[in-house]
Amino acid sequence: NHIVVTGFGTSGGEAVRELLARGVDPREIVVVDPVEKALAEAEALGCNVLCGDSTRDRTLNDVAIHRARTLIVSAGRDDTSILITLTARHLAPRLPISIVVRNEDNELPARQAGATTVINPVSFAGLLLAGSTDGKHIADYMSDLAASGGQVKLHERFVLPAEIGKPLSAIATGLGVRIHRQERAIGFWEEDAAKLQTGDLIIEIVQGDAAGEARNPA
Amino acid sequence: NHIVVTGFGTSGGEAVRELLARGVDPREIVVVDPVEKALAEAEALGCNVLCGDSTRDRTLNDVAIHRARTLIVSAGRDDTSILITLTARHLAPRLPISIVVRNEDNELPARQAGATTVINPVSFAGLLLAGSTDGKHIADYMSDLAASGGQVKLHERFVLPAEIGKPLSAIATGLGVRIHRQERAIGFWEEDAAKLQTGDLIIEIVQGDAAGEARNPA
Ligand SMILES: [Ca+2]
Ligand SMILES: [Ca+2]
Repeated sequence: NHIVVTGFGTSGGEAVRELLARGVDPREIVVVDPVEKALAEAEALGCNVLCGDSTRDRTLNDVAIHRARTLIVSAGRDDTSILITLTARHLAPRLPISIVVRNEDNELPARQAGATTVINPVSFAGLLLAGSTDGKHIADYMSDLAASGGQVKLHERFVLPAEIGKPLSAIATGLGVRIHRQERAIGFWEEDAAKLQTGDLIIEIVQGDAAGEARNPA
Repeated sequence: NHIVVTGFGTSGGEAVRELLARGVDPREIVVVDPVEKALAEAEALGCNVLCGDSTRDRTLNDVAIHRARTLIVSAGRDDTSILITLTARHLAPRLPISIVVRNEDNELPARQAGATTVINPVSFAGLLLAGSTDGKHIADYMSDLAASGGQVKLHERFVLPAEIGKPLSAIATGLGVRIHRQERAIGFWEEDAAKLQTGDLIIEIVQGDAAGEARNPA
């Protein structure tokens, strides 16, 4: 039930540091990189490390990929990242796999290779740049929402038994923004958001782990 | 009252395409790049273009930077982007400037150079990767929120006269998530969010311009 991070470059390193900030035990993280030198920092953070080529079955078997909780792929090159994704998907059919791609053309192939989450930093930056022309606080709010620190963070959880039948707007844990019900994404403004159902997945904005401030005692 | 985009690489290109998706008239956009070839695509999109070095006063004066509504800087190298920011800030003291930096160490210098919004695609990708381990819909929701298309978008606006004195949760245009009041950012859960005041800036989640679907007639 560990997290495998393959590729410890800038994005992979940021991901590990954010996982630790979110309270993940570094001993639950296994970092794989073909370059021995890249692993020194991961080791210093307390993570398990393996020097190897994650496009090979053998490497992924060595980190028990079939028992992993999730796989983060950021190999630095889209072709390598996609091949790692294909290999991992073959070895672990139900594993959640998050991949970074740098070229927009590779987003679809990454999904076809079996990635459950595809992140394109370049296109995201473009969206944030454009958004910043609409208001000076938009980009900062997005950053706050993405990071667990600061004032807010985005959270996903299943509906609680006591919430069944009530509206999304009535949840007490945060501000409900979306419901995933079967294959549908339901917005807060939709009629279907007026009555939570068993099995609903709720996306909510909750208070962040405000860095440098006292945590809310509640 | 135009938008100047300096550097038409991947991030700059994405920013321009998203601006057009948001309904900005391409004739209000001026794209500057030192490489003639990079400008062909911007020109094809209907933007004004200028081939030149944006670290020079002369280039920025040629695009009437002092009359621009906003400046987007994504020159591909952090040192170049920061020098452009310094130059522009000197020529236009109140101009909103959004900059892309790739190295975390350059975020603070970018702000010191006068950038109002600093975007680091790499660290953002790390945050999204880490967030994706918490829930499979988190990264997709963040992408939807950042883009004007899809189901939702983030919006910033001033409080309306009719809203003064009412709680943030009562606004009818969207889901209010944060208030900027003077120098403070007030969360939806805070007592101060119970009473909107004159001059408040509201961050809200509103319905997106769902791509490929009919717009909401409302
Ligand atoms: Ca946060
Ligand atoms: Ca959207």
